[in-house]
Amino acid sequence: MLTEPVTPLRFNRLLLTGAAGGLGRELRTRLKRYCDTLRLSDVAPLGEAAPGEEVVTAPLQDKAAVHALLKDVDAVVHLGGVSTEQPWQPILEANIVGTYNLYEAARLNGVKRILFASSNHVTGFYKQNEVIGTDAPARPDGIYGLSKAFGEDVARLYFDRFGIETACVRIGSSFPEPRDRRMLATWMSYDDLERLVMAVLTTPVLGYSVIYGISDNQTRFYDNSGAAHIGYRPQDSSDRFRSAVEARQPKLDLSDPAVIYQGGAFVRTGPFEG
Amino acid sequence: MLTEPVTPLRFNRLLLTGAAGGLGRELRTRLKRYCDTLRLSDVAPLGEAAPGEEVVTAPLQDKAAVHALLKDVDAVVHLGGVSTEQPWQPILEANIVGTYNLYEAARLNGVKRILFASSNHVTGFYKQNEVIGTDAPARPDGIYGLSKAFGEDVARLYFDRFGIETACVRIGSSFPEPRDRRMLATWMSYDDLERLVMAVLTTPVLGYSVIYGISDNQTRFYDNSGAAHIGYRPQDSSDRFRSAVEARQPKLDLSDPAVIYQGGAFVRTGPFEG
Amino acid sequence: MLTEPVTPLRFNRLLLTGAAGGLGRELRTRLKRYCDTLRLSDVAPLGEAAPGEEVVTAPLQDKAAVHALLKDVDAVVHLGGVSTEQPWQPILEANIVGTYNLYEAARLNGVKRILFASSNHVTGFYKQNEVIGTDAPARPDGIYGLSKAFGEDVARLYFDRFGIETACVRIGSSFPEPRDRRMLATWMSYDDLERLVMAVLTTPVLGYSVIYGISDNQTRFYDNSGAAHIGYRPQDSSDRFRSAVEARQPKLDLSDPAVIYQGGAFVRTGPFEG
Amino acid sequence: MLTEPVTPLRFNRLLLTGAAGGLGRELRTRLKRYCDTLRLSDVAPLGEAAPGEEVVTAPLQDKAAVHALLKDVDAVVHLGGVSTEQPWQPILEANIVGTYNLYEAARLNGVKRILFASSNHVTGFYKQNEVIGTDAPARPDGIYGLSKAFGEDVARLYFDRFGIETACVRIGSSFPEPRDRRMLATWMSYDDLERLVMAVLTTPVLGYSVIYGISDNQTRFYDNSGAAHIGYRPQDSSDRFRSAVEARQPKLDLSDPAVIYQGGAFVRTGPFEG
Amino acid sequence: MLTEPVTPLRFNRLLLTGAAGGLGRELRTRLKRYCDTLRLSDVAPLGEAAPGEEVVTAPLQDKAAVHALLKDVDAVVHLGGVSTEQPWQPILEANIVGTYNLYEAARLNGVKRILFASSNHVTGFYKQNEVIGTDAPARPDGIYGLSKAFGEDVARLYFDRFGIETACVRIGSSFPEPRDRRMLATWMSYDDLERLVMAVLTTPVLGYSVIYGISDNQTRFYDNSGAAHIGYRPQDSSDRFRSAVEARQPKLDLSDPAVIYQGGAFVRTGPFEG
Amino acid sequence: MLTEPVTPLRFNRLLLTGAAGGLGRELRTRLKRYCDTLRLSDVAPLGEAAPGEEVVTAPLQDKAAVHALLKDVDAVVHLGGVSTEQPWQPILEANIVGTYNLYEAARLNGVKRILFASSNHVTGFYKQNEVIGTDAPARPDGIYGLSKAFGEDVARLYFDRFGIETACVRIGSSFPEPRDRRMLATWMSYDDLERLVMAVLTTPVLGYSVIYGISDNQTRFYDNSGAAHIGYRPQDSSDRFRSAVEARQPKLDLSDPAVIYQGGAFVRTGPFEG
Repeated sequence: MLTEPVTPLRFNRLLLTGAAGGLGRELRTRLKRYCDTLRLSDVAPLGEAAPGEEVVTAPLQDKAAVHALLKDVDAVVHLGGVSTEQPWQPILEANIVGTYNLYEAARLNGVKRILFASSNHVTGFYKQNEVIGTDAPARPDGIYGLSKAFGEDVARLYFDRFGIETACVRIGSSFPEPRDRRMLATWMSYDDLERLVMAVLTTPVLGYSVIYGISDNQTRFYDNSGAAHIGYRPQDSSDRFRSAVEARQPKLDLSDPAVIYQGGAFVRTGPFEG
Repeated sequence: MLTEPVTPLRFNRLLLTGAAGGLGRELRTRLKRYCDTLRLSDVAPLGEAAPGEEVVTAPLQDKAAVHALLKDVDAVVHLGGVSTEQPWQPILEANIVGTYNLYEAARLNGVKRILFASSNHVTGFYKQNEVIGTDAPARPDGIYGLSKAFGEDVARLYFDRFGIETACVRIGSSFPEPRDRRMLATWMSYDDLERLVMAVLTTPVLGYSVIYGISDNQTRFYDNSGAAHIGYRPQDSSDRFRSAVEARQPKLDLSDPAVIYQGGAFVRTGPFEG
Repeated sequence: MLTEPVTPLRFNRLLLTGAAGGLGRELRTRLKRYCDTLRLSDVAPLGEAAPGEEVVTAPLQDKAAVHALLKDVDAVVHLGGVSTEQPWQPILEANIVGTYNLYEAARLNGVKRILFASSNHVTGFYKQNEVIGTDAPARPDGIYGLSKAFGEDVARLYFDRFGIETACVRIGSSFPEPRDRRMLATWMSYDDLERLVMAVLTTPVLGYSVIYGISDNQTRFYDNSGAAHIGYRPQDSSDRFRSAVEARQPKLDLSDPAVIYQGGAFVRTGPFEG
Repeated sequence: MLTEPVTPLRFNRLLLTGAAGGLGRELRTRLKRYCDTLRLSDVAPLGEAAPGEEVVTAPLQDKAAVHALLKDVDAVVHLGGVSTEQPWQPILEANIVGTYNLYEAARLNGVKRILFASSNHVTGFYKQNEVIGTDAPARPDGIYGLSKAFGEDVARLYFDRFGIETACVRIGSSFPEPRDRRMLATWMSYDDLERLVMAVLTTPVLGYSVIYGISDNQTRFYDNSGAAHIGYRPQDSSDRFRSAVEARQPKLDLSDPAVIYQGGAFVRTGPFEG
Repeated sequence: MLTEPVTPLRFNRLLLTGAAGGLGRELRTRLKRYCDTLRLSDVAPLGEAAPGEEVVTAPLQDKAAVHALLKDVDAVVHLGGVSTEQPWQPILEANIVGTYNLYEAARLNGVKRILFASSNHVTGFYKQNEVIGTDAPARPDGIYGLSKAFGEDVARLYFDRFGIETACVRIGSSFPEPRDRRMLATWMSYDDLERLVMAVLTTPVLGYSVIYGISDNQTRFYDNSGAAHIGYRPQDSSDRFRSAVEARQPKLDLSDPAVIYQGGAFVRTGPFEG
Repeated sequence: MLTEPVTPLRFNRLLLTGAAGGLGRELRTRLKRYCDTLRLSDVAPLGEAAPGEEVVTAPLQDKAAVHALLKDVDAVVHLGGVSTEQPWQPILEANIVGTYNLYEAARLNGVKRILFASSNHVTGFYKQNEVIGTDAPARPDGIYGLSKAFGEDVARLYFDRFGIETACVRIGSSFPEPRDRRMLATWMSYDDLERLVMAVLTTPVLGYSVIYGISDNQTRFYDNSGAAHIGYRPQDSSDRFRSAVEARQPKLDLSDPAVIYQGGAFVRTGPFEG
């Protein structure tokens, strides 16, 4: 958690979906100081509500539950849904139906700003020797990436048609530290995650925007200069982990699709068989 | 039907989905002479199978049915699914689940080329005074357009990962004649439709491509120069209908979103309420 | 004059400024059949008003006169002002103050569509071996070109702010025939001029657009593909004059700025001295 | 004033126009140490000339006065003219006629480098969620922005034709501190202003360039990477004012054009009436 | 040979190198009517000089011979050198040393315009489902393509530095008729070749330009819109050969690099071994 | 030499060609700690081999010698060849034949990664007031630049066809300190050179890449954002030399091609005569 909050702006009520996941647990503590009430939702157990928290169990494919979830909310940080490669059915329900439900609920409840946790797997079929900008068209690397590409299009529609603002944050790899050499490029620290979330929630005009969720890493596949209006300035870098990671993984097989493409191992795993 | 077939190339078996719809009925007669067997599918009645035809009733959301549908097929002309703005559920089933099923079936059956009937409603939120190319990112104008944008992403994934080639044909307005002034720009004759379908099916290398389905109209919102490798050269034009259409619709309300945006009335209709 | 009118659409009253000039005299006869009343203005004598004509003498720098001029007008074809390189003061008055007056008058009178006769001299400092599109930024070649660049910016402002639509037609060389080899590239026939004017006046949505006013010449510096929404399709070409022009001007001095740059002799003449 | 001068390069005589205005007064003291003589001009009182200063009262629309003003000058920092939205007539005189006079005077006096104080209002109709580069075409937000767009075109002409180099500095908001949330993006400190002015005056080759005048703010609408040859590296940032500004202005009306567009309140004020 | 010459312009002396090759023999008869003297060179036998012809045997790697060859020449059509994939040494001598010698000779003899017969093999590693423009960077597919890429860079240097104008004509497949399905896209008729050569030689300003040498084929990988200033308008098309070619080659192996890439079989043949 | 090595990754054997030159001598000491064996080659004397060094005299035009040189090598830093403007013959031999030999040797020896010391003279005919990216096409300023452009194309071919990865490093001016004002933009410190070399050798996926070899200078003509995947982050800047350089060279002649163009004096010197 940052020593200093990023901004003095406060919200009445923020909604954090997917609050039981890895990033969700991190943001649960961090977002609290930016709002009076933090509503948390997931299908996994969230524990007791702390003071200022509201805890809701809401499957995203449950339209009525999601509509209720967005009631009286100022803004949404939507981490909910499946966040790994999985078979079609659960991704269909949580990510495709779920995201549609979320935006319909936002429209009906008058919620006007959403951070949509998109993914680098939306653009996983670009190569690791390409540098792509915030306008790079989707090249999903699997079912999960496909569902996130769909979510970005939902967001685009609800902005063009109803003025609901979204930042599609194509999150790289947000873990305590990078685990392999690809993550030296895609890593985002939790502190930078907080900086990015708050930049999205507080920038005066967000519109429909795409931004890559990475720290200020030396090696990068992504160029965020098209999203400077969001005002995200990362302060961390994967560089301090470089020696350790390289020592652990000195050799790479350059014929491995997981090394060739930005999506890493996602480009060759998944629910495809036969 | 064209006097001369476009090409002497012949297929063993072509699959035409959505064969009971407007364009499907047109193509049913036209495609026959390019293949030994034309398999037709729809959920609506298709009548008797003529010689050289196979008639199949297959709901696209029925995975097993769709897998069977693509067996022993050389290529697919996929018009199936919902083709108008409708509520979420039928579009989800036929267009989202259905298109996913179709590509999975293609992968498992070894089918390598698909014409995906996409739509101008994938890019319906561009303005009528913009000219967009084949690389224009999706700006869907409703649930239908959203489902077609999803289909384009599925096609992209299955090409990048499995080498299944697709032309996403963003069809304008393919009717016997243009009905209003917007359609002077978006109209495609049935003969040009046949030319385009056969260009897609026979071009040596298709890859993943996007092309707009319009005739050689004087007024256009679309620039197909990025798809010259497909070899589609329209021979018709909406121009001969211009006088009649303009006489019928001399005035336009320039503040009407249906006039401002390329998607026409789709941008302000649909299943949204509340 | 075209045998067939381009369109059956009719206007109540069109205003043609600069009606006493070369192009003005051509359009005076041609525009008549597209409107009930054709209002003509110039500072030079316009002769008697024919039936269906209104003749007005209005110096463009005279704000009140211009405001009166645009009263009850459906659309404006603004050819008025200085159309050659001249000293600053007359260009300032007629083209800079004059164009500002015209747009203010349009705003106050509720006129919503204007054809602004811009010029290839707005982009005269591009080279003759460059092909520029409709989005080429201004590189004026003299005071006249500068004033037309200003007019384009006025049009941009009045569209962004007040929704007044304009086509800035960067006219090449509209004469009975091309006079030199540069004009083989820049020539526009009077019939194509009529086609272009009527396309601008009748296209459903014009917005703020730029288009080059040339025929379908074999050699071109300009690419109009960004303006396909206007629906201008030239039918003439300078090619039939090629032999005569080349015979007359077989040699060119490639070190002459008038040969190097698209603006021709304008790039080295003008009111600059000392 | 910077502790250390930016550069050891010295000029014999610099001309600072608009020296009585806000930025003019700042630069009056700062520029002195880079030249032997600093000539100051304005139509407002400038007080006594300090040692090394020359004080001139010269209305920019007075051609003869302006020609005299540029005599024996090495370079010009042209802040003169109207710098707020005002009626057409004063802007026409000071900014349109005045800028033309200035460049004619530069040409006749052999002055080869000019910093032209352009404005973010040249591009005021881009949206606050767009990031624009140094090649963004003009979209002026009012009469003032229009006059600055004209000045940029004058500079382009005088470079293409006469080799007079100009940096059009599209100044954001240069005040002691940012006053509202939009200015967090557009703010430029006076120290950064000095850095930018001296970078423009001393870079070896300037050509015709456009650069945005902002500090190294976290939130930005502008991308200066196309002007790296000028060598402007801001050292300040609006970030230290963020808390105070956000506390003062916690809520924004996202339907207000002043919030939607980069030009802020200029896009809805001005001398337009009726 | 065209019934009508393309242009009445005449040259005193044209030089045609590589005059004994396939295209050289075609142009030998065609170019004669555009010049008083046609100088022909090759290392292969050229037969007797007809009236108005000069026949020279000049190995391109022979600097002195090439310098003599360009004496008193108005313009050069440089087809000379190796035109197929071959080992390094002959390509080095004829195409690399030879082209350098040619441009040095042009410089020393004051020759100011050259048609350089480049090749589609300069860009052979683009895919057949890509459409590339005249600004596509080199992606040579072998030693031959590499040598042509070098020639284009020589031409660029001699234009930037010495003003010698060149059209680099990336010739597709210029044969009496297309031999396979790839050539349906790359074919150029001999009549169109003549049109293109004369367009290059007579356009007023050529500069350094790149253009693809193809007819108006329905299927294309190339977009010549960036070279409209040259004024090449093909009149032929491969379409009339389509049926025959497709009947002969109904199946393609889409995993064959010769099918995947624009360069065809060149991408997998050549002097590489080991 | 950097206090800390850039990376813990180690190579068995690196080859450094041109090891007797200015940059070669610098890298000889610096590269040693990243490999077990450093093979050094040049045609000039290299002195005794230190422990862990192998010293080879190999003229690059000697195919057999170069093939032997690349045996058992992990990667190559290819500085060898002529590095100044010289007559055609030595450049042909060392840079054109030599680079071809090097890549053939890499192919035959299975060497998969090369740093090719390209040069800013590949793009020397861009202007000093232009900022170019890593995709800027070659505009060589002389024979030397031409040979480096050829080398870049060789590298492109060997990557597209054989998967040999190369970074073409367009080196600016790598000297102990910048010597003139142009070098303030083009300078690269030796420490940054080491950083860049090691980034190229160790980035997971290099592909075919172009990057400019400069430090983090305030004034720049180059934009490396397209090469962020390499992970080069310069730590030095020419700024600390600015005062000294400007004091030494206060005046520039803006009509001198050496000042106008990025290539500096190279654009007007060289082996051209007559």
